[in-house]
Amino acid sequence: MSTIGQVIKCKAAVAWEPGKPLSIEDVEVAPPKAHEVRIKVVAAGVCHTDWEYLYQTGKGMKFRPFPLVLGHEAAGVVESVGPEVTNFSPGDKVIPLFLPQCGECEQCRGPKRNQCRKNWANAQVGVLADGTSRISFKGQQVYQYLGISSFCQYTVVPDICLAKLRCDAPLDKVCLLGWDVSTGYGAAVNACKVEKDSSCAVFGLGAVGLAAVMGCQAAEAKRIIAVDINPDKFEKARLLGATDCVNPNDYIKPIQQVLVELTDGGVDYALECNGKPVFTTTGSSCCLSAALESTSDGWGTCVLVGETETEAMSVTVEKILMGRTLKGTYFGDWNSVADVPRLVDDYMSKLKLGEFIDHNLQLDQINMAFEYMKRGESVRTVISL
Amino acid sequence: MSTIGQVIKCKAAVAWEPGKPLSIEDVEVAPPKAHEVRIKVVAAGVCHTDWEYLYQTGKGMKFRPFPLVLGHEAAGVVESVGPEVTNFSPGDKVIPLFLPQCGECEQCRGPKRNQCRKNWANAQVGVLADGTSRISFKGQQVYQYLGISSFCQYTVVPDICLAKLRCDAPLDKVCLLGWDVSTGYGAAVNACKVEKDSSCAVFGLGAVGLAAVMGCQAAEAKRIIAVDINPDKFEKARLLGATDCVNPNDYIKPIQQVLVELTDGGVDYALECNGKPVFTTTGSSCCLSAALESTSDGWGTCVLVGETETEAMSVTVEKILMGRTLKGTYFGDWNSVADVPRLVDDYMSKLKLGEFIDHNLQLDQINMAFEYMKRGESVRTVISL
Repeated sequence: MSTIGQVIKCKAAVAWEPGKPLSIEDVEVAPPKAHEVRIKVVAAGVCHTDWEYLYQTGKGMKFRPFPLVLGHEAAGVVESVGPEVTNFSPGDKVIPLFLPQCGECEQCRGPKRNQCRKNWANAQVGVLADGTSRISFKGQQVYQYLGISSFCQYTVVPDICLAKLRCDAPLDKVCLLGWDVSTGYGAAVNACKVEKDSSCAVFGLGAVGLAAVMGCQAAEAKRIIAVDINPDKFEKARLLGATDCVNPNDYIKPIQQVLVELTDGGVDYALECNGKPVFTTTGSSCCLSAALESTSDGWGTCVLVGETETEAMSVTVEKILMGRTLKGTYFGDWNSVADVPRLVDDYMSKLKLGEFIDHNLQLDQINMAFEYMKRGESVRTVISL
Repeated sequence: MSTIGQVIKCKAAVAWEPGKPLSIEDVEVAPPKAHEVRIKVVAAGVCHTDWEYLYQTGKGMKFRPFPLVLGHEAAGVVESVGPEVTNFSPGDKVIPLFLPQCGECEQCRGPKRNQCRKNWANAQVGVLADGTSRISFKGQQVYQYLGISSFCQYTVVPDICLAKLRCDAPLDKVCLLGWDVSTGYGAAVNACKVEKDSSCAVFGLGAVGLAAVMGCQAAEAKRIIAVDINPDKFEKARLLGATDCVNPNDYIKPIQQVLVELTDGGVDYALECNGKPVFTTTGSSCCLSAALESTSDGWGTCVLVGETETEAMSVTVEKILMGRTLKGTYFGDWNSVADVPRLVDDYMSKLKLGEFIDHNLQLDQINMAFEYMKRGESVRTVISL
């Protein structure tokens, strides 16, 4: 029986309040309104950011309203489309995107960047364009994290936040292109524009950092130094292209000094993928400023890639004056709707994605994914819905 | 009688200790050694950095050894050359440069930047390549500030720190190209690469800032907003191209908010030329972070131009992640020896320099130049030697 135009009852992992595990509930998903698409979520990656929104609200992250359904890195199939949707039809394979691309605003029309802000404020507080969510539990509104909520068997997203994929794309792999892998890979190839034979350092070997390593290798960097305080990450880093792996805990001196010495003056590119301060056992901070200071005088570029919302970093002005550049990237500088299908093409020919996935779980096992993450035992867990 | 090969006795303004006025003394200037050139200084600009080294040592500036002769922005004529000097002859008009260009190191050979470090450590502590200064007072070594010391009628500088000028260059004007004007102008045209019809904000209207305004105009920026808490600077700013002049003291709200509102989202380029924190009468800080935060989401670029050595700035990571770039420039990204003669050519055809000069003084009036500076009554005083 067709579900088009009907409310769909399905399972979702609901976050009732900050700091508490997710709870599997029967929710209702309303039909899509104008310029919205309802999708059946097939596979969803569990990202560190999901964990942070749940367990670090008010600390590393701004407060968002609860209850909400987390999940923002997924792939699925279009179930139905709302009025005025012209680009999608039921059955299309798609990746929902937290970053819109309306194609009409100054950001979308200009050549420079990818920061479309259509309905941005609404998405930040978990609602769609009309100010409400499409998900509810016994009549109570359940907010949609970043306007997506992929830890739900069905969800409704704006048509400007949806990439259409080729039919042969394996959804349980390409779901990772919805956020972290695209972000890290793009940080290297787009934001840094890493050059052939250059030297790079990647701080933090979560999915973003490992994808950055992969991007540095794709750009034919000569030296790719992977930095993490968890040496269990080094095997994957090497597999994805790291030439050196450095654990700051193995040194008394600050990691930036280690890298400057290792490269005789500093790396050309540093990619900060921790997204938050990381402290070594010797007490020095291994990120942000350390990444900047590990780059070369004169031309070193440091790109902040990891997601962090409330953090401030202290920058020694002289380090900037000496010719360094500090920049940021959001979603690896990709244009979301236009570029994600191209990244899927790249995956079909050369990009690695399976290497990022350690665990595959069912929706009702989702809290286990946070456990693996906390223990440092996973780069990525993919949930089947 | 030729002075070649002889010690020259002449006048210098000696800084005996931090915090005390300069004292005019009879000093001795030794002949140049290998790869050094002795020049007769004709005209020297008095820069805010000179003042800072004297009156802010240990505060905004690192400690340098005293006694020393300040002055680092000058023009003169070659008196004699040491062994192995091939590019200069007596009589050549020249500008001494704090930034070397040896032509051989990685920095000089690469396409990216201008931060040659040949003999850098020595110059920072006031001596030449052999570890000594060429200036002395009754047998006591007098240090050469940044290896230059232009507040002396004669000085000796390395041949890799000297630009040769066309014969018709007026030294009392082009001396300004030795530091601040080149720095500010280059910050706009090289470091920012300001584009036609873009919007720019320049923070701090000293010589560097006014030159940055001139650079923005040369690059055909549509809107050039000049920011200073001293409204007396606005007339010159308008003359050099500012379309708007904003005094942060006229507003309760932070200056970055004023600029974001004024430009409907933020400027494309912000040039921070204060070089140090400036506080408004309402207590908000008007520089560094404010400059960064006055730029647009998605593509805004903030360049730190002003000289500051010990300052740190706090950067809100989210502002960087949202697509901003923070970078620095040293000497406006010009290659010192190669580019300064071209800037002199530009001056002969179109660049303004006379507009920067408020006062012309003799060497024995040099402390008056610091007075004018402190009172905010001068952009530049030029000393005749």
